Amino acid sequence: MTIENRPSGRAADALRAVRLTRQYTKHAEGSVLVEFGDTRVICTASIEEKVPNFLKGKGQGWMTAEYGMLPRSTHSRMDREAAKGKQSGRTQEIQRLIGRSLRAAFDLNGFGERTLHLDCDVIQADGGTRTASITGAMVAAYDAFAKLAEAKLIAAMPVKHFVAAVSVGVYCGQPVLDLDYLEDSGCDTDMNVVMTDAGHFVEVQGTAEGEAFDRATMDRLLDLAQSGIADLIALQKKSLGLSS
Amino acid sequence: MTIENRPSGRAADALRAVRLTRQYTKHAEGSVLVEFGDTRVICTASIEEKVPNFLKGKGQGWMTAEYGMLPRSTHSRMDREAAKGKQSGRTQEIQRLIGRSLRAAFDLNGFGERTLHLDCDVIQADGGTRTASITGAMVAAYDAFAKLAEAKLIAAMPVKHFVAAVSVGVYCGQPVLDLDYLEDSGCDTDMNVVMTDAGHFVEVQGTAEGEAFDRATMDRLLDLAQSGIADLIALQKKSLGLSS
Amino acid sequence: MTIENRPSGRAADALRAVRLTRQYTKHAEGSVLVEFGDTRVICTASIEEKVPNFLKGKGQGWMTAEYGMLPRSTHSRMDREAAKGKQSGRTQEIQRLIGRSLRAAFDLNGFGERTLHLDCDVIQADGGTRTASITGAMVAAYDAFAKLAEAKLIAAMPVKHFVAAVSVGVYCGQPVLDLDYLEDSGCDTDMNVVMTDAGHFVEVQGTAEGEAFDRATMDRLLDLAQSGIADLIALQKKSLGLSS
Amino acid sequence: MTIENRPSGRAADALRAVRLTRQYTKHAEGSVLVEFGDTRVICTASIEEKVPNFLKGKGQGWMTAEYGMLPRSTHSRMDREAAKGKQSGRTQEIQRLIGRSLRAAFDLNGFGERTLHLDCDVIQADGGTRTASITGAMVAAYDAFAKLAEAKLIAAMPVKHFVAAVSVGVYCGQPVLDLDYLEDSGCDTDMNVVMTDAGHFVEVQGTAEGEAFDRATMDRLLDLAQSGIADLIALQKKSLGLSS
Amino acid sequence: MTIENRPSGRAADALRAVRLTRQYTKHAEGSVLVEFGDTRVICTASIEEKVPNFLKGKGQGWMTAEYGMLPRSTHSRMDREAAKGKQSGRTQEIQRLIGRSLRAAFDLNGFGERTLHLDCDVIQADGGTRTASITGAMVAAYDAFAKLAEAKLIAAMPVKHFVAAVSVGVYCGQPVLDLDYLEDSGCDTDMNVVMTDAGHFVEVQGTAEGEAFDRATMDRLLDLAQSGIADLIALQKKSLGLSS
Amino acid sequence: MTIENRPSGRAADALRAVRLTRQYTKHAEGSVLVEFGDTRVICTASIEEKVPNFLKGKGQGWMTAEYGMLPRSTHSRMDREAAKGKQSGRTQEIQRLIGRSLRAAFDLNGFGERTLHLDCDVIQADGGTRTASITGAMVAAYDAFAKLAEAKLIAAMPVKHFVAAVSVGVYCGQPVLDLDYLEDSGCDTDMNVVMTDAGHFVEVQGTAEGEAFDRATMDRLLDLAQSGIADLIALQKKSLGLSS
Repeated sequence: MTIENRPSGRAADALRAVRLTRQYTKHAEGSVLVEFGDTRVICTASIEEKVPNFLKGKGQGWMTAEYGMLPRSTHSRMDREAAKGKQSGRTQEIQRLIGRSLRAAFDLNGFGERTLHLDCDVIQADGGTRTASITGAMVAAYDAFAKLAEAKLIAAMPVKHFVAAVSVGVYCGQPVLDLDYLEDSGCDTDMNVVMTDAGHFVEVQGTAEGEAFDRATMDRLLDLAQSGIADLIALQKKSLGLSS
Repeated sequence: MTIENRPSGRAADALRAVRLTRQYTKHAEGSVLVEFGDTRVICTASIEEKVPNFLKGKGQGWMTAEYGMLPRSTHSRMDREAAKGKQSGRTQEIQRLIGRSLRAAFDLNGFGERTLHLDCDVIQADGGTRTASITGAMVAAYDAFAKLAEAKLIAAMPVKHFVAAVSVGVYCGQPVLDLDYLEDSGCDTDMNVVMTDAGHFVEVQGTAEGEAFDRATMDRLLDLAQSGIADLIALQKKSLGLSS
Repeated sequence: MTIENRPSGRAADALRAVRLTRQYTKHAEGSVLVEFGDTRVICTASIEEKVPNFLKGKGQGWMTAEYGMLPRSTHSRMDREAAKGKQSGRTQEIQRLIGRSLRAAFDLNGFGERTLHLDCDVIQADGGTRTASITGAMVAAYDAFAKLAEAKLIAAMPVKHFVAAVSVGVYCGQPVLDLDYLEDSGCDTDMNVVMTDAGHFVEVQGTAEGEAFDRATMDRLLDLAQSGIADLIALQKKSLGLSS
Repeated sequence: MTIENRPSGRAADALRAVRLTRQYTKHAEGSVLVEFGDTRVICTASIEEKVPNFLKGKGQGWMTAEYGMLPRSTHSRMDREAAKGKQSGRTQEIQRLIGRSLRAAFDLNGFGERTLHLDCDVIQADGGTRTASITGAMVAAYDAFAKLAEAKLIAAMPVKHFVAAVSVGVYCGQPVLDLDYLEDSGCDTDMNVVMTDAGHFVEVQGTAEGEAFDRATMDRLLDLAQSGIADLIALQKKSLGLSS
Repeated sequence: MTIENRPSGRAADALRAVRLTRQYTKHAEGSVLVEFGDTRVICTASIEEKVPNFLKGKGQGWMTAEYGMLPRSTHSRMDREAAKGKQSGRTQEIQRLIGRSLRAAFDLNGFGERTLHLDCDVIQADGGTRTASITGAMVAAYDAFAKLAEAKLIAAMPVKHFVAAVSVGVYCGQPVLDLDYLEDSGCDTDMNVVMTDAGHFVEVQGTAEGEAFDRATMDRLLDLAQSGIADLIALQKKSLGLSS
Repeated sequence: MTIENRPSGRAADALRAVRLTRQYTKHAEGSVLVEFGDTRVICTASIEEKVPNFLKGKGQGWMTAEYGMLPRSTHSRMDREAAKGKQSGRTQEIQRLIGRSLRAAFDLNGFGERTLHLDCDVIQADGGTRTASITGAMVAAYDAFAKLAEAKLIAAMPVKHFVAAVSVGVYCGQPVLDLDYLEDSGCDTDMNVVMTDAGHFVEVQGTAEGEAFDRATMDRLLDLAQSGIADLIALQKKSLGLSS
């Protein structure tokens, strides 16, 4: 596969260097620094010993996610959402996506009346922050539940599937995997895909930012995503000391 | 195709009765009541003779969308967003989707420094309000631009493609087209698809609410959407007195 | 009475064509489309099985109203209040007026610890939206309570009075009934009157937008309102199949 | 006129002791402490050398009013609106009323492109704070304009009329003038009336809090208001050293 | 000590005329008008028969403070915080300071599960509003607790210390006590000090607005504050009829 | 000096291990990770080519600071301020302190009509986050101005003084330097001090959280701060490759 036209010099189907650093901060039950190339996100998982009102007394747990970017994580400084007094539509969309994706990975009936809060905070942005967040949050959540299991507070790990996420897109007419910022801002189509370790889809969100794209392109993008996500899940398991 | 397990009795690939009523209200440049079965949405298109600051002096136009639901458009009454003082994440996600979809349909360089405001207000909800909104807003926007063209304010209609949208999903294990509320609340997977009259994708947003779904299901869902959208675009053109 | 100077050509004491369409939408316990000429408002009445905290345990019910306008219900598009994050002073003033007026019509001790939510949403505005809202909400509330009575959840209809509302004003020096938008924007004095079927006053809100007005004018305006409201209450009762 | 059933022992047509203290604070162009019995309101008038955007370049001025209550101006402490982050519907309704009333008193074309800000802050509340505010703000505004006139910045005082306001109501079945808190909280009907020194109406806002009231009562209430306002305007003029 | 360069003509170590007027308004349990020269602040203390959630059931009380300025308490009119929808950082900083200072004065275990709300509202500002607020709030709080003691609702006055506050600063190179507005706006360093009747520090907040200041200046400023606060506490006790 | 009663085992006058890592993220003009023991704060300095409106056309620059904490930077998870829709009083107080401190360090007339935005985001909190922020922001700001100087956009580095900050407090009766979380939560008095490299005071903010403290303690605390800040400024200069 030719690599000449990606700014990064990567092959069309090549991920960036991906790193997962566990126990990155000391207070959270799970704390992971996830890096996709220059994109760096701190994902923490915090366990709270109660559930939202709509779930009280049902014996089940809840998982929810929040997402933020440091004001100068980006090329030019963005206004701080806390100072503006509201989260943008983009932020809300991303945190809803992270929450749904992670709820698909775990069994909400498997950890009692507890809430797992996932916080994904972007320290440095270079494209793909939402997919990096999902990929890192999976590991942070796993670590948090492992703490509950070690403490015998839950009988078994409430994992249904591993999930990971990656972006795919059409850059200069060519379908490519895991777009960095330069590729993302120049691409025609951007699609974020979340899949399980069984190769099944949890979320597909594709947008034609330039030209609408045809079915053949759609098929190629889904192939790229499937292959990239398999690699990411292998990395997640390796970082947790699990066999693939 | 068997129809026995859809609450509506429809075939798996059957749309609900779809109606487009133009000139539904009198003040807006374009005003369409769109009905997909019991789902009823008023879509208005308003032309404003200026653009947002970030586009000033660039000679191009802008299109933006807002979405709302009347508090009792739904089974049980929802809180009014204006009274709560903010729009939900869901509302923002939907209006961002409508905006992107319609900007794909029109040439932003073809109508001068004007803003087209699309307002999609749900009067009665029975599933598929966002896809009905996109389908109706296309016609409202067309009418508004036609007014500009009749008044010789623009040289040609700035239409690139017709776009329409429909939901598809997996209901009781079976891929189906155009889910109503009963089907939507019971389904495993929900996907909203926006396509052009050339059969190309503008947006694909799929979520596995229950089980993650496999590639074969994905392919079947995309087939259903493609067929349904072709019918919807034919209806749009017919209501506008255009040949398909 | 001369009619020459009203833009509408109506006699000074003539209402516009008034229509009340019940069961306009399907989910609400009461749902009425009210039209005063080109002014169209959807009034829904929703029953909630609880009361606000300040009434809990007192065995009495509550009624509250909210009012909104679709952004393009007006000649030029207004900003959406949900997007601005707050309701204007005008909106709050109107919904407080609707709430007080309807609480005067019904016996709050007659329907248990329930809240009746009245939502008045203006689809198309051509003057007199607040008085149309009150007039339509009366019928929607009646229908909602009738559902409770049919289901034997309340022993009797909790109606104290019928109430209706109309605007009166001084247009080109002449007192007139039921101002439309053209008359309203050109008038000196605008007064909204809410009365019962016994001909008693519930609310009187008059503002001299131009010249202050004298006592004789006040008397004439009250006469016009009294006569118009009697007609409106007859229409309400007729639409409900009640004898006047 | 019998006085036995007013808690205050006043005759039905008697005002409370009314005092107007000019130059109450030192920074404002006009500053008046107005007292109606135990109701005490600080009314300041501030001149700003510009107008809102919608009036720029039109050569006319603007007047606007804001209203507030100190948290413990009332029997039990109210939440501070600045801390809650929004003004109540009641506050907005009152400040809109004050603004409209004062704009009726002055010629907006008579003081150049300036804004007069009226601030009415209730120090101690005992009924009738909005009518006291209007009565005091008239004097504060007069003082502020007099400063402009003395400085030769305007050619003449831009006064069209004097305006004052008073409440009337039905207490224990009897129409009475100028209700204090005890009377107000026990009354059936409450009406606020704003009139000019010519005896013409600027605003009438009546609400039947208990029983709806008949036309004869309406007439008696308007008589009481007319008489009370004449006295208040005489007091305003006296405090300003003007002949009635 | 030379007095030539203070605009007020005061000696460097001289307070302005300080007055404390108790029972200034009639509803509050404690109500004090405090004046430091032309600075006038109404301090009220309101007792509420409950505590915030985080203290429920612990048998202890709570004290909290809010601060506000009337829009035209200042030289030029400020925007009203209630209208802007939020309190400034300055306001929040001040009310946190007042709250901490007063909680240091009283024994939170000595008045049951009650909350004392202190409201400090500036009627006229001429420098030192926050220190005047603390000094006046001490007396208002004392009065409120005295009411509880008289009513035998508490066994003893829960006073630990008297506290008072004063500003000191460097004006034209010279350390001075109790800056008025002219001095404050021209000074290099501004320090607010809160002390007890034992001469101990509760709060010290110093800011070099111009040049950073050295340790000798710091020492002189603390001396001035200590002397001024001793005088203020003597005044507080005298106004309450207590021996110093 | 005895060390037995500090949880950290440090001497009363010992700082924690302090590290300054420059160029911590890649987009910001200045980016520093500052660590005081386990307290970790990312300080970025961003240059914007304009000033706030109140400074336009005056030829001078501006510096402003914002502060935030990641939700799980703390022992138990805090609510995200962006999600709550407002910054707490504590946050605003801290960012005002950082801004004032850094404006004291640089010459606002020395870098043209530009704004330097300082963002201090706490990744991990263990006491002293505001003083660490100031200490790190000094270095980040220096780096940002050095970029302007290298690019010849400014003629000289606009540094007036180096500033650094540290906390001091009374822990178990003993004055100590640089409190960590355990010491901070158990201490009686907490004082934050900001000083220049000339040993002069920029800010002093001391609060007696338990017992009020006497003048001798105040003197000892100021001594400790002075010594600690001298060490911190030496570290800042060393990290920048400057001679002390």
